[in-house]
Amino acid sequence: MDIQRYMTTIGMRAREASRHVARADANTKNTALLTLADGIRRDSGVLLDANRQDIAAARADGMAPAMIDRLTLNEKSVAAMAAGIEQVAALPEPVGEITDLKFRPSGLRVGRMRVPLGVVGIIYEARPSVTADAAALCLKSGNAAILRGGSEAIRGNRAIAALVHEALLAAALPRYAVQVVDTTDRAAVGCLVTMREYVDVIVPRGGKGLISRLLDEARVPMIQHLDGNCHVYLDDDAEPRMSVRIVENAKTQRYGTCNTAESLLVARARAEDLLPPVAAMLRSKAVEIRGCEETRALIEDALPASEEDYAREFLAPIISVKVVDGIDEAIDHINLYGSHHTDTIVTENYSKAMRFLREVDSASVMINASTRFSDGFEYGLGAEIGISTDKIHARGPVGLEGLTSQKWVVLGTGQVRG
Amino acid sequence: MDIQRYMTTIGMRAREASRHVARADANTKNTALLTLADGIRRDSGVLLDANRQDIAAARADGMAPAMIDRLTLNEKSVAAMAAGIEQVAALPEPVGEITDLKFRPSGLRVGRMRVPLGVVGIIYEARPSVTADAAALCLKSGNAAILRGGSEAIRGNRAIAALVHEALLAAALPRYAVQVVDTTDRAAVGCLVTMREYVDVIVPRGGKGLISRLLDEARVPMIQHLDGNCHVYLDDDAEPRMSVRIVENAKTQRYGTCNTAESLLVARARAEDLLPPVAAMLRSKAVEIRGCEETRALIEDALPASEEDYAREFLAPIISVKVVDGIDEAIDHINLYGSHHTDTIVTENYSKAMRFLREVDSASVMINASTRFSDGFEYGLGAEIGISTDKIHARGPVGLEGLTSQKWVVLGTGQVRG
Repeated sequence: MDIQRYMTTIGMRAREASRHVARADANTKNTALLTLADGIRRDSGVLLDANRQDIAAARADGMAPAMIDRLTLNEKSVAAMAAGIEQVAALPEPVGEITDLKFRPSGLRVGRMRVPLGVVGIIYEARPSVTADAAALCLKSGNAAILRGGSEAIRGNRAIAALVHEALLAAALPRYAVQVVDTTDRAAVGCLVTMREYVDVIVPRGGKGLISRLLDEARVPMIQHLDGNCHVYLDDDAEPRMSVRIVENAKTQRYGTCNTAESLLVARARAEDLLPPVAAMLRSKAVEIRGCEETRALIEDALPASEEDYAREFLAPIISVKVVDGIDEAIDHINLYGSHHTDTIVTENYSKAMRFLREVDSASVMINASTRFSDGFEYGLGAEIGISTDKIHARGPVGLEGLTSQKWVVLGTGQVRG
Repeated sequence: MDIQRYMTTIGMRAREASRHVARADANTKNTALLTLADGIRRDSGVLLDANRQDIAAARADGMAPAMIDRLTLNEKSVAAMAAGIEQVAALPEPVGEITDLKFRPSGLRVGRMRVPLGVVGIIYEARPSVTADAAALCLKSGNAAILRGGSEAIRGNRAIAALVHEALLAAALPRYAVQVVDTTDRAAVGCLVTMREYVDVIVPRGGKGLISRLLDEARVPMIQHLDGNCHVYLDDDAEPRMSVRIVENAKTQRYGTCNTAESLLVARARAEDLLPPVAAMLRSKAVEIRGCEETRALIEDALPASEEDYAREFLAPIISVKVVDGIDEAIDHINLYGSHHTDTIVTENYSKAMRFLREVDSASVMINASTRFSDGFEYGLGAEIGISTDKIHARGPVGLEGLTSQKWVVLGTGQVRG
């Protein structure tokens, strides 16, 4: 198989299909989405069979249990996949919406119309549900999609792709509006991220390793999501019970998500008072504490934290802890060691809350709330294709808006420029 | 001079300065801007002297008259530079503005805060006024700027840079908030567009050649502005006098701007009626017509248009003309040959106007208006740093909004996720 030629064909077909999808009305797109949801429910047996084969092959390859876990579908996750697509169908139509239409001194009315980006390339690992989610979000936003899942999930992805094509056909949409790259050859990814003439944006979903590799290769703009090294800062004016509750939720509700807190900062003036109850809570959940010297003086079983620990996304029951002077050091520490994902302050002080909000340079900045709220559903986007830690184009949870752009529309009555 | 090391130093200084500029309040930034405007007026003699030396050197190098023209400052253009900076100072403060703050079912209030991008690199040619404009827009939007002007303008740019530094000092802002790359070595540009750790976005202002060269090299995201091959489409339902007036203004008001029309499309059913008066007007202004066969049958002195002519930005008194079936062919032609900059339809038909608006894939799409209106001042942005023909991040005229991003802000009262 000539991968370059194969990917060029996919790219050309996607570009051509994107013109039709961009013009499709809400009903047409929703018909396809609801047909897909129905198909997934009807063929859940087929999907689960394909997934079982993927799992067997992955086991034979010696894949790590955590990865096997991410790869595994069951009745419940297949039902959730279908329900998720129905939720996307129910979202308001994003394409064609005109906003801010205002008269200018020239007498022209100038506004902005939301339009699709064109062709979206999605590169992801393991989770087969991404194939259905991403297809749905791209279609709803009027984009053509090229989906490149992990080789470990290829049988499941093929089964979902067949249902997507059936759904596109049912709505009289072009079959190439959603294409699944059907090769496990790694070179396909290299082609995908460099075909600037056929692909408008790349959304990578996966580990830090995948994304930094792609960043070096890519010529197509990328909505990148690197890691989530999220912080909780307990300020001088933090309420003690709220402090324990927020650290507990941010750190221990789930260990493997990118909006989980990985680092705790505590104002020196309150360390003696706030750290022991927080540490007791963490201990009760078997979370390992890696702290600075001051932390270790207060919490005897804390291990020493290295410089590297402050910069790390553990994705595990481990937390780094540092005692800081106050809000200045907290903000500097977060901007230096953090990953610009999500950070929260616990405080009752208005001025410090406002400074934190303004000065922490992250995609989501919170006051008195758990970092775990950082996601598209909680923010009201309906669904997300990823969480961007970048500043260009889209920042934070990326929903339909992040998959679209706005063009200027100018309504005149014959105006010419003087 | 070790260019790599020189540029790294500039990058590190810009990154450090960007943290301070991002936190500066509106008064501080406006003080710097007004001081700069005063300095430019006070030292206009110094600027004009430096500019004369640049011009003399450029002449000695055999620079083309059009380029010399772009390079040349005079009393009037220096006064306009100062006035432009005062206009930027008068714009509403963009940084820190919170919008769309809404309650979510969790009880959290979730909204978005406008924030600077960080460090903006601007690469431009000839026009020394860009140095002042770009410095002002970056500062107002809370960004640090690295300005790399053309080597032909280096003396003028140095003189402006000195005034910028005086203004930063007067406002107690870091002197490295705006840096002018003080070398004519082309390698500096290569460094600038690849220093991902120090530069957040590149805004290239210049010819197609410059930008496609940069696109191949760049690792930093770019707000690109390629060419402006703008179209006027005279529909079946075009009003005849409006047709002539709009073509006249769009094509002949100025030949060298990117929002000038370069191509005219006419619906077949009206070609006999609309083309002759348009051609007469163009002939009276000595505009060369390059047309399809049908055009040439109606306009005897029209030259034949090649395939290439339809894709070309002439920047000269030349226009390509094509007779098309109607709106479908017009839209397809524009999307194929155009540069996604600005295109306009002349029509009295509502449905076709709406289809044109929706289906033409350009940064600005107009109805019954001259393409010459496509710019930041006319759209109400106050000033522009460029016009993007891209879809990612910013599209069309890029003002303060395009130099900023939005982060999510979450205001809680102790919420944790269930």
